[in-house]
Amino acid sequence: MCEANAYLRDGEKEELLLEMVDKVIPTEDGLLLEDIYGRRKIIKARIKELALVEHKIILERE
Amino acid sequence: MCEANAYLRDGEKEELLLEMVDKVIPTEDGLLLEDIYGRRKIIKARIKELALVEHKIILERE
Repeated sequence: MCEANAYLRDGEKEELLLEMVDKVIPTEDGLLLEDIYGRRKIIKARIKELALVEHKIILERE
Repeated sequence: MCEANAYLRDGEKEELLLEMVDKVIPTEDGLLLEDIYGRRKIIKARIKELALVEHKIILERE
């Protein structure tokens, strides 16, 4: 499986938000994250970096 | 490997921009895409959708 884990970066820290993320879709309400089981989270953040080989999606608060 | 292919969506069409993308980083000049070999492309676009299980990064022109 080629999902990734979504982290919220805050300065030097990275907080794990959601594991095994399949879909990421920017919406008017924020960034919609959906994991491989269909569980969803919406967060007011933007994509800071994708590092897919490391399975990382780095977000930053808007 | 868990890279994805980057496509530029234009209406109904999707044009393949870069295969085996590892990193995606928004910069002032546009979206920086880097494949697993370190080859880079910068494109004036935003992320429209990630569908990682399908290995797809969908972009849209800014």
